[in-house]
Amino acid sequence: MVELNNMSIEKLSPAMFIGVSGEDIISFGSGQPDLPPPERVYKILPSYRYFKYGLIQGQLNLREALAKQYPKSTPENFVITNGASEALDLTLRAITLIKSKKKNKVLLPRPYYYTYPRLVKYAGMEPVYADLIDGRIDLDDFKKKIKDCKAVIINSPSNPTGRVESIETLKLIEKLTANLGTYVLSDEVYKDLIYVRENYLIKGPHVVTINSFSKTYAMCGLRIGYLWSLDQKLVNNIIEMKTCTSMNTNILGQEMAYEATKTPRSFIKKQVEIWEQRRDLIYEGLSGMGLDLWKPEGAFYVLPKIKNPTNFVWNMFKKYKVIAYPGNWFGVNDRVRFSYALDIDKIKEGLKRVRKYLGTAGL
Amino acid sequence: MVELNNMSIEKLSPAMFIGVSGEDIISFGSGQPDLPPPERVYKILPSYRYFKYGLIQGQLNLREALAKQYPKSTPENFVITNGASEALDLTLRAITLIKSKKKNKVLLPRPYYYTYPRLVKYAGMEPVYADLIDGRIDLDDFKKKIKDCKAVIINSPSNPTGRVESIETLKLIEKLTANLGTYVLSDEVYKDLIYVRENYLIKGPHVVTINSFSKTYAMCGLRIGYLWSLDQKLVNNIIEMKTCTSMNTNILGQEMAYEATKTPRSFIKKQVEIWEQRRDLIYEGLSGMGLDLWKPEGAFYVLPKIKNPTNFVWNMFKKYKVIAYPGNWFGVNDRVRFSYALDIDKIKEGLKRVRKYLGTAGL
Repeated sequence: MVELNNMSIEKLSPAMFIGVSGEDIISFGSGQPDLPPPERVYKILPSYRYFKYGLIQGQLNLREALAKQYPKSTPENFVITNGASEALDLTLRAITLIKSKKKNKVLLPRPYYYTYPRLVKYAGMEPVYADLIDGRIDLDDFKKKIKDCKAVIINSPSNPTGRVESIETLKLIEKLTANLGTYVLSDEVYKDLIYVRENYLIKGPHVVTINSFSKTYAMCGLRIGYLWSLDQKLVNNIIEMKTCTSMNTNILGQEMAYEATKTPRSFIKKQVEIWEQRRDLIYEGLSGMGLDLWKPEGAFYVLPKIKNPTNFVWNMFKKYKVIAYPGNWFGVNDRVRFSYALDIDKIKEGLKRVRKYLGTAGL
Repeated sequence: MVELNNMSIEKLSPAMFIGVSGEDIISFGSGQPDLPPPERVYKILPSYRYFKYGLIQGQLNLREALAKQYPKSTPENFVITNGASEALDLTLRAITLIKSKKKNKVLLPRPYYYTYPRLVKYAGMEPVYADLIDGRIDLDDFKKKIKDCKAVIINSPSNPTGRVESIETLKLIEKLTANLGTYVLSDEVYKDLIYVRENYLIKGPHVVTINSFSKTYAMCGLRIGYLWSLDQKLVNNIIEMKTCTSMNTNILGQEMAYEATKTPRSFIKKQVEIWEQRRDLIYEGLSGMGLDLWKPEGAFYVLPKIKNPTNFVWNMFKKYKVIAYPGNWFGVNDRVRFSYALDIDKIKEGLKRVRKYLGTAGL
């Protein structure tokens, strides 16, 4: 676990908390399901024996299974990646290399998932921000700013807001970007964790949909993600790049992901019911403390307004062993992100500690 | 397997052959051991159950085991990566971002492993080439060109030459680069497959050693590599980057790599004996056909001179179902690379087909 004594408030960073656990720590930090993966995923382990290189693009059985889930697609349209993270990274890097009259700018709705601005910069591009209104895309602002951009990242359901964009908004974005020839990176890793409706899959000639087995099937540590696009030239450029940057994605993880694709829909339904129960608990708990927050429509995050968020995060961790992430990591200064991907008892205990702290701090 | 009918000579690329196998194909292509990993590596599978995020830097047990293998090092000096490929990619990208009076140029001895120039360019830097003399670094040329470069990649034992640099050369490079403040990426993935002496570990304040479990322990498909450096600032920058670009390396693969670290040295010794036998077979076979080639001192590649290498590669594949890689992928136009990472019978059969073709072609 984290060494409390070596830490300071200035040093707080997401890398410090990921994979961290310890006795008596309540972590509303990293967004990973506490539930186990479907049993069939690890049932293949005892007899598994293939450890050689796989296809760079990803194993065919897995891509075939995915092609059945996406309309008008073939296995050629997919690349299996080291989590959604690598899918985002490779796509941005491949887009940077495409010659275009457009400037190398990428539009990011804000608050954003904290890696987006960094990935954009690492890829040699410049982030441009469009502030959300009440957690939703402001179409007027979006229309103005998208014209100047080569790409945009959409993340619905959103981490960290827990919001789901309306289908009208998503369809308008499809039209706008198709007309402008803008690349759309649609990060839909929470597509199976929506409480308000079915997921709407963004479509278009330059859309790259990014997804993962991590959240739906509780297999974050195996790092199996993928991208899907009908822009075959871009897909091929990404494969060429991946041949150099990481080669095939872990071959055993891919076989486990293939098993996950056979999981009946009822598994996901049951998971959503569990998430919904937890959502209600934390939403009501934090609302009950007088905090201002949106009721999550998808994913497993709440983003309440909290005075002096960095102090809150620091003290909650040092004094109450509660991990939460300051909003400024996500581009918002007056909020704190809580993941509710932990069991009911832990959420209750965590809420108790937050209530105690807020009482003491007189907030 | 590869669809012969959809292929053309212009389309030949490494990505096409990696992970490809098929009935009656003899592949001298991709460099992966045909041998199985040590049994203990997959003995952990039946009871393995941890699928959550791990530490971005890599699991502590694995880094502790590695720290015992590298002098004056602690687990903090390591990052576990998606193969040596990701270690190279992240290191180059992190170096690009470091402000320096030096230009963003990277020196590459040529012939080079085919991904190097691409990785350098993907990272936004410019490759500068230093041609090897008879497969070895030309120190005069090296001295001239290194002054202008921010980094250099050294690869001894070398893929594709099979050569091992002399310890004198490596020590001179250590001195030169330490004085100039040049980053050294020492790709030592074949450190355990040397026929002529023990590996010499390059040391220095800005040395990043890159290694992998793929070759030594025959676990290429699991993609577990790592980097080691005493330049802690650079290591920390790489971890910060990896937090965004791929997060932790596959957690089950890491546990299997940890098991591999417990393999007795006798396993490696036995492997080297097998490689040496194969080396002798292919070296004598190709020499016997009158081809001009170096006797490999490490790794498992030979790089004979062959007239019209692209035609040779194309015809050998189309007509004789033999895969070999044209030298131009490695920066050398008059040679062909053969990997001898396959069993004696297959090497013999492959040599027979090469002999037949060369006889027909009258070369």
